Amino acid sequence: MTSFGPQIEVAIARVRAEVARLHGELTRYGLVVWTGGNVSGRVPGADLFVIKPSGVSYDDLAPENMILCDLDGTVIAGTPGSDRSPSSDTAAHAYVYRNMPEVGGVVHTHSTYATAWAARGEEIPCVITAMADEFGGPIPIGPFAIIGDDSIGRGIVETLSGHRSRAVLMQNHGPFTIGANAKDAVKAAVMVEDVARTVHLAREAGELIPIPQEAIDRLYDRYQNVYGQSSDTRRAVPN
Amino acid sequence: MTSFGPQIEVAIARVRAEVARLHGELTRYGLVVWTGGNVSGRVPGADLFVIKPSGVSYDDLAPENMILCDLDGTVIAGTPGSDRSPSSDTAAHAYVYRNMPEVGGVVHTHSTYATAWAARGEEIPCVITAMADEFGGPIPIGPFAIIGDDSIGRGIVETLSGHRSRAVLMQNHGPFTIGANAKDAVKAAVMVEDVARTVHLAREAGELIPIPQEAIDRLYDRYQNVYGQSSDTRRAVPN
Amino acid sequence: MTSFGPQIEVAIARVRAEVARLHGELTRYGLVVWTGGNVSGRVPGADLFVIKPSGVSYDDLAPENMILCDLDGTVIAGTPGSDRSPSSDTAAHAYVYRNMPEVGGVVHTHSTYATAWAARGEEIPCVITAMADEFGGPIPIGPFAIIGDDSIGRGIVETLSGHRSRAVLMQNHGPFTIGANAKDAVKAAVMVEDVARTVHLAREAGELIPIPQEAIDRLYDRYQNVYGQSSDTRRAVPN
Amino acid sequence: MTSFGPQIEVAIARVRAEVARLHGELTRYGLVVWTGGNVSGRVPGADLFVIKPSGVSYDDLAPENMILCDLDGTVIAGTPGSDRSPSSDTAAHAYVYRNMPEVGGVVHTHSTYATAWAARGEEIPCVITAMADEFGGPIPIGPFAIIGDDSIGRGIVETLSGHRSRAVLMQNHGPFTIGANAKDAVKAAVMVEDVARTVHLAREAGELIPIPQEAIDRLYDRYQNVYGQSSDTRRAVPN
Repeated sequence: MTSFGPQIEVAIARVRAEVARLHGELTRYGLVVWTGGNVSGRVPGADLFVIKPSGVSYDDLAPENMILCDLDGTVIAGTPGSDRSPSSDTAAHAYVYRNMPEVGGVVHTHSTYATAWAARGEEIPCVITAMADEFGGPIPIGPFAIIGDDSIGRGIVETLSGHRSRAVLMQNHGPFTIGANAKDAVKAAVMVEDVARTVHLAREAGELIPIPQEAIDRLYDRYQNVYGQSSDTRRAVPN
Repeated sequence: MTSFGPQIEVAIARVRAEVARLHGELTRYGLVVWTGGNVSGRVPGADLFVIKPSGVSYDDLAPENMILCDLDGTVIAGTPGSDRSPSSDTAAHAYVYRNMPEVGGVVHTHSTYATAWAARGEEIPCVITAMADEFGGPIPIGPFAIIGDDSIGRGIVETLSGHRSRAVLMQNHGPFTIGANAKDAVKAAVMVEDVARTVHLAREAGELIPIPQEAIDRLYDRYQNVYGQSSDTRRAVPN
Repeated sequence: MTSFGPQIEVAIARVRAEVARLHGELTRYGLVVWTGGNVSGRVPGADLFVIKPSGVSYDDLAPENMILCDLDGTVIAGTPGSDRSPSSDTAAHAYVYRNMPEVGGVVHTHSTYATAWAARGEEIPCVITAMADEFGGPIPIGPFAIIGDDSIGRGIVETLSGHRSRAVLMQNHGPFTIGANAKDAVKAAVMVEDVARTVHLAREAGELIPIPQEAIDRLYDRYQNVYGQSSDTRRAVPN
Repeated sequence: MTSFGPQIEVAIARVRAEVARLHGELTRYGLVVWTGGNVSGRVPGADLFVIKPSGVSYDDLAPENMILCDLDGTVIAGTPGSDRSPSSDTAAHAYVYRNMPEVGGVVHTHSTYATAWAARGEEIPCVITAMADEFGGPIPIGPFAIIGDDSIGRGIVETLSGHRSRAVLMQNHGPFTIGANAKDAVKAAVMVEDVARTVHLAREAGELIPIPQEAIDRLYDRYQNVYGQSSDTRRAVPN
């Protein structure tokens, strides 16, 4: 077995457990069907991340079959789960970890409403206060890119760098979200579907009332700095 | 530990248990995601109310981590849960309790369809009999207001005072509901999403048939006075 | 305790158990919220039916709190549950049992899509084969009628007498369904919401293709006579 | 009891268990209501398939009440379950097995969004990458056909032969899906509803962005050959 020293091994074990558990949030909120969707988490203190295996049922996910990769997306041989293929989106996750050192978690789904906006290549306007809180403005669209090279990862990084939103809707594809850790990225995946649905429904029935930019700024600032318990790890993705 | 005498302590314990339990109705009916939404209940016979902690998972809510506040929204030091922050909407709940003595429960969610009407600033017309029963007419829109002062609480009170509806859709934000107690306010939160969804769907397919005002009045009167078991606590919010 | 002789008591016990259990199908399929909706079943061989109590939680329904009524809707004193009020829709159920002797079960819900059609007073056109199977044509609209006299019951009976459909959408109100027994009426309540949703969605995206009347007739005839196991109680409501 | 020799009996037992279990995926994903929908699986090495009984509740499905049929759809007398009628769609399943030897599983549902496209007779355009992966292009419409002869089976076979899609939307009826085995056909049934819903919602809000044919081809090719674990049975339906 490959080993990284006791401290890193503890961190890996913690991330394996967290990433396996968080996939349950994707099914709880109906963001995925069958084996679609994936969560990954960076191992603090190491150039490693943990990601879901490819094409495996959500009922069968456990810490020991999560897959450990380096930041090129190469599976670390001789570690639990390394006999399986990692998620087919591993290259995109790896690209984000290599290029956004502040990101500790990445999530990808084809959640229904977010993907519907993506199929039109249309950003989601910020018309509800929960969206201002969480994303600080509209949810942007990323470029059309398909699996096979770095173009998905590059599209995510280029769209989200310098943007308040930690969700991007990749055109004709679906949402990718980032966060300070895997849990934070999963929260963003849950919230982006929630706002995608609410704004879709709101707009199909008539004119939306915009929120003044100054109010969006105040809501976003407060939420990033005040909301929740002081013991929480606050989101650390710089904007 | 701060103590209020045996009778009030019994009432506090009962409201803590009820408020903790009622959060389960918000998830059961899909009104909330992640840690969003909150229920509070007034402690009968005291200037106190119990509310959910901020940013805590619905799986982790229990009577002992509900938070006891006075009617200014200040956490009562030395009581269970007082080491945590209360819901970020506590000021709005407190404002309602201070200004509407007949209200015993307040609920806030970002439920999907209700929030969609709020994003357009459009009241929900009363076109189904269940809505006439429960709300006695349309569901009104409250002003745009953001966290930071009393403006949300004031908007709720000004909109619902003298109104039959015990639900208000705060513009660009979402529903707040009130009731004789926490359970009654939760019922209103469940019903407002139900009618928001039904009327949304009805209208997107064609012309709605209005219900004559006289029929609305008769339905509302009967439901407030006859429906349910005679042992139920009937709604006591005056209109 | 009032008693009806051993044979009728056995029949009452069986209908109590069946009606209590069938309410679980209303929640399973999302047809009801809170305490809304009700199922009743006729007691074979007696001028009696069993119905849900008013305003009681779906979690608390059990055979012994179902309420036994005569065909005028009067609660039979001295029977289990008779200390509670029956469903506020009891008069409508009773009217149906009095006037349609072939009906053994009645169900009422405010299920979302069916109620949306009712709010427009628009019958559901028969454009999917499952609807031809089950209902033999369009789902009709009943008159606007409110609680307080026999007008709801009369509207149901007048609309469904001589009609293939065993579901009616009471205008601005919601669906009532009938059947050979309570289970059959519950099936109709499940299916009417299913077709209401599918046809709503189909039509909002474009032109529907009609099914030729001759094909509707053949599908309906086959389904009423051939489908299911030969041991099933086939639907006995004449058309 | 009819017997087929030990090897075939083992295969039959495995398919019975798999087909019974897979019906649980139809309810998990909300593709069916009441007793609607059916899964069948071919018995490898024999001219036999296993299918659901007609009109039996999803709660009551078990390996021993699945029904064994020959490729004419005739129930094999003297085998477990043979005292019941098979699914009323058995003739259509049998026709597919007789005419598409590469097919090992067939599924039929009336899932909501797929059936809505079917009610308009409109194929689902390929505008999301997950659809290109799974179906390699649009989901086609099959002819209007009703139960009573081979016309449903023939419509499925004629539409899907030479087509990449392993789902067909039978006009005014609903989806049928095929696969290398029953599980693969169930996956197709889950995915066709998922893409039917997403594309419906996307299009009702504005213009869809087409995916270039060359990208569709590359996505389809990669997914059929690379995705998942190398130990998986890959789809074997030729196109």
